[in-house]
Amino acid sequence: MSVRRSDRLIDMTRYFLERPHTLVTLSFFAERYDSAKSSISEDMAIIKRTFSNRGTGILETIPGAAGGALFIPTIQKNEAKTIIDDLIEQLSTADRILPGGYLYMSDLLSNPVVLKKVGRLIASEYAQQKVDAIMTVETKGIPIAQSVADYLGVPFIIVRHDSKITEGSTISVNYVSGSSAQIKKMELSKRSLQAGTRVLVVDDYMKGGGTLKGMQALINEFDAELIGTTVFAQGNFNGQRMIDNVTSLLNVDASRDEIQIQPGNYLTKVFD
Amino acid sequence: MSVRRSDRLIDMTRYFLERPHTLVTLSFFAERYDSAKSSISEDMAIIKRTFSNRGTGILETIPGAAGGALFIPTIQKNEAKTIIDDLIEQLSTADRILPGGYLYMSDLLSNPVVLKKVGRLIASEYAQQKVDAIMTVETKGIPIAQSVADYLGVPFIIVRHDSKITEGSTISVNYVSGSSAQIKKMELSKRSLQAGTRVLVVDDYMKGGGTLKGMQALINEFDAELIGTTVFAQGNFNGQRMIDNVTSLLNVDASRDEIQIQPGNYLTKVFD
Repeated sequence: MSVRRSDRLIDMTRYFLERPHTLVTLSFFAERYDSAKSSISEDMAIIKRTFSNRGTGILETIPGAAGGALFIPTIQKNEAKTIIDDLIEQLSTADRILPGGYLYMSDLLSNPVVLKKVGRLIASEYAQQKVDAIMTVETKGIPIAQSVADYLGVPFIIVRHDSKITEGSTISVNYVSGSSAQIKKMELSKRSLQAGTRVLVVDDYMKGGGTLKGMQALINEFDAELIGTTVFAQGNFNGQRMIDNVTSLLNVDASRDEIQIQPGNYLTKVFD
Repeated sequence: MSVRRSDRLIDMTRYFLERPHTLVTLSFFAERYDSAKSSISEDMAIIKRTFSNRGTGILETIPGAAGGALFIPTIQKNEAKTIIDDLIEQLSTADRILPGGYLYMSDLLSNPVVLKKVGRLIASEYAQQKVDAIMTVETKGIPIAQSVADYLGVPFIIVRHDSKITEGSTISVNYVSGSSAQIKKMELSKRSLQAGTRVLVVDDYMKGGGTLKGMQALINEFDAELIGTTVFAQGNFNGQRMIDNVTSLLNVDASRDEIQIQPGNYLTKVFD
């Protein structure tokens, strides 16, 4: 017995949402629901319209009997602005200021609801580009990388500070960490990145950009390609930053007694 | 103008899927779609039926005008078994064996599609219990913790090996690591866990159980409560394990030249 439209719409919606950037064919759904391809095609048109009206994203339909559709999560400017404003409000409380002028953000970046919003924001900037993998360095960048990877439908790669026996052989680079200009090492399992892979780098916080520059050096070592770099927050830094062209959701100024948080360059870069 | 049923079903499905274990009221949807509560109630019944038929999970409806529904992700035994069998097949290739009898699993545990399946499996065991937070220790447990947290609609907590300036003050415990009986330290930011919190501990791999026992000690230090412990894979260990009652998706035997992978105790614990 073929499945009725309402049931198909619900199950197809779930199916698309769980597999962003993945083509699902008419044939697959026709068989799953024992329904005609023409009916599935109409279902897709309805889902496409609702996703568009609600700002969920683009359901890109590929016409023809061999066609299908893929879901591309996006975000609208007003929703993006609301998310960034909410983050600023939540982070702008006095009890978040730690000794040394640091900001406590770990609770936000381990909340799945917040991480989904952050991942969707970052992924939307690169929604129309070909990205093969997300790269970050342990530890606090990982949840952000995972969420972005989820929305772009690609794997993520974790760069480590020290080599682990469970990673096999690695390639390492030295990098300059922080304003202290300390030399550190980061390494990546040789198995985890193939030559030619198009990599998006994400991290939770940037000051001088040394860590991000280290990841760029690793990408070069692996003959992979850097597509872009986005951080959750950019802090103030005295002197010349080591990299350019970084997208940031937030701008944190901890140079005075009080921490000031402003929107980063995300909205301008993505929507203007 | 009120929104038509097909559009409501698509948008409500997305809304529930994005917020597991969170009550959404009839009033909220009635206002969102400018529709009667009775219509929304019918929509929920349709979604409930489809989620049940497809094994997506339970849409638990709260009756009455002040009621609503919450989505509880679950998994059926045959689907769980298929996922575990697929994991075993993917991990049972000779090129995954690393020097020292270790198994390379990092690619699977950084693939969002695999992580969703793993998170859904683990979360389903605790779907009917009150869990307030997921705990893991850096680094490789983090993606699993994030995915489980996502399906249970709670935050996750990352225990660190060394104290970070961005975490504020911490509480630390010593623990016995591995068969080498080395004493190590793990610590957790004081802000990140409140007394009385009901904690589910997850990790990627267990051998002797020392790391898991360390997390249990931390939970005690914080006057929080341990609800359960689940690992992705349990390895073989000569001697008495330091903790009992651990759920494992996979059992890895690397005691001989060849690595043997079998299902862990998950299916038995959850479905029998």
